Amino acid sequence: MRSSVVARSMYAASVTIYASSLGMQPAAAQTFEDLKQSRSPLVLKAQGSFYIGGNTVAMSQTEAGGYGVFAGGNVTVGQMYVQYMVPAVNRLRVPVVMVHGGTLSGKGYETQPDGRMGWAEYFVRKNFPVYVPDQVSRGRSGFNHVAFNKVREGSAPPSSQPLITRLSDEAAWSLFRFGPAFGVPYRDEKFPTHAVKEFGKQGIPDINAGLTPSDATPRGLSELAKKVRGAVIIGHSQSGLFPLQTALIAAKWTKGLVVMEPGSCDGFTDDQIKELAKVPILTVFGDHLDTPGSVVNWVGAYNSCKAFVKRINAARGEATMLYPPELGIRGNSHMLMNDKNSDQIADLIIKWIDKKVEKRH
Amino acid sequence: MRSSVVARSMYAASVTIYASSLGMQPAAAQTFEDLKQSRSPLVLKAQGSFYIGGNTVAMSQTEAGGYGVFAGGNVTVGQMYVQYMVPAVNRLRVPVVMVHGGTLSGKGYETQPDGRMGWAEYFVRKNFPVYVPDQVSRGRSGFNHVAFNKVREGSAPPSSQPLITRLSDEAAWSLFRFGPAFGVPYRDEKFPTHAVKEFGKQGIPDINAGLTPSDATPRGLSELAKKVRGAVIIGHSQSGLFPLQTALIAAKWTKGLVVMEPGSCDGFTDDQIKELAKVPILTVFGDHLDTPGSVVNWVGAYNSCKAFVKRINAARGEATMLYPPELGIRGNSHMLMNDKNSDQIADLIIKWIDKKVEKRH
Repeated sequence: MRSSVVARSMYAASVTIYASSLGMQPAAAQTFEDLKQSRSPLVLKAQGSFYIGGNTVAMSQTEAGGYGVFAGGNVTVGQMYVQYMVPAVNRLRVPVVMVHGGTLSGKGYETQPDGRMGWAEYFVRKNFPVYVPDQVSRGRSGFNHVAFNKVREGSAPPSSQPLITRLSDEAAWSLFRFGPAFGVPYRDEKFPTHAVKEFGKQGIPDINAGLTPSDATPRGLSELAKKVRGAVIIGHSQSGLFPLQTALIAAKWTKGLVVMEPGSCDGFTDDQIKELAKVPILTVFGDHLDTPGSVVNWVGAYNSCKAFVKRINAARGEATMLYPPELGIRGNSHMLMNDKNSDQIADLIIKWIDKKVEKRH
Repeated sequence: MRSSVVARSMYAASVTIYASSLGMQPAAAQTFEDLKQSRSPLVLKAQGSFYIGGNTVAMSQTEAGGYGVFAGGNVTVGQMYVQYMVPAVNRLRVPVVMVHGGTLSGKGYETQPDGRMGWAEYFVRKNFPVYVPDQVSRGRSGFNHVAFNKVREGSAPPSSQPLITRLSDEAAWSLFRFGPAFGVPYRDEKFPTHAVKEFGKQGIPDINAGLTPSDATPRGLSELAKKVRGAVIIGHSQSGLFPLQTALIAAKWTKGLVVMEPGSCDGFTDDQIKELAKVPILTVFGDHLDTPGSVVNWVGAYNSCKAFVKRINAARGEATMLYPPELGIRGNSHMLMNDKNSDQIADLIIKWIDKKVEKRH
């Protein structure tokens, strides 16, 4: 057999297990050899990708950024890239759409920073068809770059150009609640902080500030939900409220809404609450909400979502708060899908889907 | 069974086949329902993604684009996103790395514009482990955005900002040789021109003009080739010469170089030719090289690569030109991996790998 990454990962995985059993710290950031291999093969009925939406705009040669004699012309912008995997099982469960947060991409649901299987594959192995988009204006969805080229050629002022954002390692540490001070993890911290450099590589430029319309991704998600004839939508952080926004566009096609750690659940009108009450909703928050230095007030965010859950239930909806510390599960970070117990968190969400979306009792 | 995209794709696929058998044109651009499903499941030993390389740079708050009280700090740039699939077979073949061209991303090797299986899955089904990167500065690899934010805040002149490029539908038509005039396909055109709008959605901003170092992707590819202990590198168009550049960095780990439709094969020194002669090389060009309106002189590109093949062979290397018209295969476009006979082109490349790389006679 040819030497392959897989053979070597198996070897590396056993080394890691050995090291852990001695209470040793893994050797800093993830190396390629850390990629963990599953014990059983992944059997897919289908996998691939497609684009949702997008519209054609006419660009001048300079706007398009044409070099040489490339002419401008019609260019597609606003499209949303979606990857998918459908397991080869007779009884498929409800499709699940997983949306990433700020400065990140759909990569966040693939292989984890420490090499473990991401939620996309985990859910597929639990018989869910899984759809992972890149938010419109991020990653493989691309972005409308015209404002930048206009500034470059001098036909628009520099201030007209959208701000592009990245989160520094230091800012991420407190915002994502990896520990009480930069480089210091909580004693019970569930984020694999030894792989935090690898996590930093998942960061890419966030150009949402220039997005037109600003709700392009929820619109794309509503189209996606319709196309798959109903889906559970999972949002996180920057996209935490996207499931709710998607339901407000297409309640009929949203079968369940998983709202993970948005900055707030405030601001919905009574009419919107009435509409949202038609769909089962799960809000999810990790631990250490009072981490010092975080620019988001996570205690406030949690309380606002608790109040939101009450409003939905008062409107005869079915909303639940999943707060792992209440179940004795401590130390989860903001990055619940990357925490060392990410499978456990996934299982809690799947249990909720069982009960509230698929009504398996 | 739950209704799912797959069930509906099967339905749509049979409709398409029916329409074709009547000589009818498919109904314009790809719809989601056009996604074709394979007859047999895809069985993977492993799949996922990881990043290669990347380095940490210190950014000020404004450079990082921090809003509110987000501080600047260390941010990773220059990393290369790589997706992979490893088939679950006992006898894996040589790993294959597929690199996309300008204004495109790794998506180009996934599901095709008309819904057919892309080369990534096709090669996996032929027992190759497949690695698909996004070029450094594109898609999920992200890019270094600091120059843009500096211009926005007024600390650098607009002209210091890299030009961002997209190819218009009109420019792509002639450059990619879909036909003699915009909207008019060649009679024997192999590109599925009915799906050209869907192909346009694969276009995303190309910021290679701001890439430092400019050969960041070949460097990443050489690291990738080493990590998988040797790989065949396939490059196309903008990345057409990347396999050669990768070999010049790490000849030991490049098992085969597939050079598809670069703009030119000129410019290598005799020493470089000597180094490249250590690795089997296949150059590939499609048909209709004299398409009017193309800003690239494809006839010139083809001739320069013919001359390059001669130079390699004169240096006792093993270079071959694959020019399908010589085999009676007519009408291939620049986008060989998306042409209607993309499987046939893949098979010709696999046959070459058999013979020259894996020495199966």
